[in-house]
Amino acid sequence: MNVALLGFGTVGSSVARILCDLKPEGIRLSHVFNRGVARKRVDWTPSDVIWTEDFEEILRSDADVIVELVGGLEPAGTWVRRTLEAGKSAVTGNKKLIAAQGIELDRLARSQGGHLLYGAAVAGGIPVIPGLRQGLAGDRITRMEGILNGTCNFVLSQMEAGAAFAHVLREAQRLGYAEADPSEDVDGYDARAKLIILSRIALRAGLEVDAVACRSITQVDAVDLGYARDLGCTIRQIAKAELRADGVSAMVGPMLVPLRSPLAWSRGTENMVLVSGEYGGDVVFSGHGAGGHPTAVAVVSDLISLAHGSRPVDLPSRAARISGEFELRHYIRFVVKDSPGIVAEIAGALASERINIDALFQRPGYEKDNLPFVVTVEPCAASALRRALDRIAHAAWLAQPPLDLPMLGE
Amino acid sequence: MNVALLGFGTVGSSVARILCDLKPEGIRLSHVFNRGVARKRVDWTPSDVIWTEDFEEILRSDADVIVELVGGLEPAGTWVRRTLEAGKSAVTGNKKLIAAQGIELDRLARSQGGHLLYGAAVAGGIPVIPGLRQGLAGDRITRMEGILNGTCNFVLSQMEAGAAFAHVLREAQRLGYAEADPSEDVDGYDARAKLIILSRIALRAGLEVDAVACRSITQVDAVDLGYARDLGCTIRQIAKAELRADGVSAMVGPMLVPLRSPLAWSRGTENMVLVSGEYGGDVVFSGHGAGGHPTAVAVVSDLISLAHGSRPVDLPSRAARISGEFELRHYIRFVVKDSPGIVAEIAGALASERINIDALFQRPGYEKDNLPFVVTVEPCAASALRRALDRIAHAAWLAQPPLDLPMLGE
Repeated sequence: MNVALLGFGTVGSSVARILCDLKPEGIRLSHVFNRGVARKRVDWTPSDVIWTEDFEEILRSDADVIVELVGGLEPAGTWVRRTLEAGKSAVTGNKKLIAAQGIELDRLARSQGGHLLYGAAVAGGIPVIPGLRQGLAGDRITRMEGILNGTCNFVLSQMEAGAAFAHVLREAQRLGYAEADPSEDVDGYDARAKLIILSRIALRAGLEVDAVACRSITQVDAVDLGYARDLGCTIRQIAKAELRADGVSAMVGPMLVPLRSPLAWSRGTENMVLVSGEYGGDVVFSGHGAGGHPTAVAVVSDLISLAHGSRPVDLPSRAARISGEFELRHYIRFVVKDSPGIVAEIAGALASERINIDALFQRPGYEKDNLPFVVTVEPCAASALRRALDRIAHAAWLAQPPLDLPMLGE
Repeated sequence: MNVALLGFGTVGSSVARILCDLKPEGIRLSHVFNRGVARKRVDWTPSDVIWTEDFEEILRSDADVIVELVGGLEPAGTWVRRTLEAGKSAVTGNKKLIAAQGIELDRLARSQGGHLLYGAAVAGGIPVIPGLRQGLAGDRITRMEGILNGTCNFVLSQMEAGAAFAHVLREAQRLGYAEADPSEDVDGYDARAKLIILSRIALRAGLEVDAVACRSITQVDAVDLGYARDLGCTIRQIAKAELRADGVSAMVGPMLVPLRSPLAWSRGTENMVLVSGEYGGDVVFSGHGAGGHPTAVAVVSDLISLAHGSRPVDLPSRAARISGEFELRHYIRFVVKDSPGIVAEIAGALASERINIDALFQRPGYEKDNLPFVVTVEPCAASALRRALDRIAHAAWLAQPPLDLPMLGE
């Protein structure tokens, strides 16, 4: 099986490294494509590898499988499509492409006799996709929660230790964990693309990317991690999806996670996926979700599967109505200019939506005119809570808009 | 694809339940075999299912796949062999059979054009086998640690909360977690069979079952869990295997596990597998390792894989020399009739094998003539420690033989 690599950056060169080291039976690296390929060329690949910056040359060649590691929707999408149209197989780690066009590309692969594998698109070195496809096809998965973005996990776990958001973000950028423009990560779009792919495989639900709401972790303050700790919790960026009678609830954003939950175990840039099946109960996968080598392991594993004639179990998914509603407890952090009657107003707004207050916390040591305190409420629909908070959105005593975060159970 | 079930006990009837509920495309339950089948027959399976107590009838039938859930080496082994010889495929959850004869049965399946799948043989509902085969084939796994026996995990986690071994074991038997004769579980033979299977898949190493040493958890006393806690650890039955230059180190038995290690996260009867790859780093799988439904999920997932033409990635394994040696820190608990010079004698015995003492702990509140205390030592070969302890095995001050446990790192 001849393999052409499109893209020889961090992941591409790791894939070549592993292929040269493990020499998996039946797999030969035949082509490397990259813009300005002369600059990229290395001396440790087999001498008969063809280095090119011409995609057409690869398409015409004897390459059986094309590994797309260029990223982004275009030209990567066109290249994958043309690869499959030519009856070749494609392996990709492109979450954006698979989230947006995976169903259509899967169909194209089937119709042309090729295969499309994308184990590297979600949680890099953790075999979540094969685990779900091959290993949990015999269950009905009803719920999924994931820590799917290493950057956010790094930032929030550092904030847990007391650091401020801006400081940790700079540190993450220095370490190469975060991009110069961190929006894809911190605002949840990266995790959302992965959630869409996992929902398709685990819940058999086809979700429109834009229909899943994302909330940014930038709103989370150090004070929230302190209050979370008082509640026996921490805060993580969670990508959550759940089957409902009328569709799927899905959401990405910061949430409170009990310290006893597996989701609180992940450290630094680790990823974790928890799926819950009707028959098998909870299963947890965790490990290194990103980085050149772990992602390359997923790519090479897909190549080995193809070389061994192992076809992915491809269960049909259905387009599903998406809602952002989860019936969960919520944490609401207010920062106020203290004056009498604030709690009464908040309680009144919540009561008007029939939301029950669970507890009220106030840590000592803050100034009266910039006073943070926390209200937790019993399980309620996110939309009801939003309406309740809208009622007090313009209150004169608010020093900043309240932050409401869902609280996950154990 | 017509499916015959051999065995209609807890797992077999769960498999039938899931097949009737999920109705996976292309799979039809055609036969159920059980001794005294009339007594087993249920009314909720399709009416055209043939119930029989004659294996030959199934072998002659149009069943394409036979699911062996009878357990034990015989007659299960003969039935699986004859199934494969007939060119049919077999799915089994029989760890004992696959540990002892898996390599030979895999070869038989390949030569006859059938397939042999056994995802249910290890860690039931956790997709460790497909995760390793399909998802981590692209890495070089060098180390593996597993909590593979739910009974032992239940017993040790209850002892952690202060209960005595005998009491917890009775409780486990009452709850149906432990057999009347618990030896397979507590002495490590069950976990060993699973370790052999995982070593074959992950380390590509064929290990002889009897060559892997097992140590019983029955030697662990409540006092050890107390001392472990003082050391920031707990105690778990761990099945451990590691590639060495000259073969594989493998061992099953109670070990100290740092509370910060993922291996300490598993609760109750949960299972967990941690594998460590040269490229992808650590990956953790956890969930429900046993029970009718989770095990049945693994069986049904294997059936769906077969129905979808998904062949397992089958990488060659090599017979490997086994050693029980791990270069690890050790915990040694003595119970002594206190008298002067004991520590000097112990220190002398350890020094004679060039083993360095790390620390010495003694909890207050015990009687002088039955006094437990603990010595921890720096990393050393298990064989050297054994020789050192043999030197003082007949000391008059020993109230009982010392217990030495390996200590895992984080």
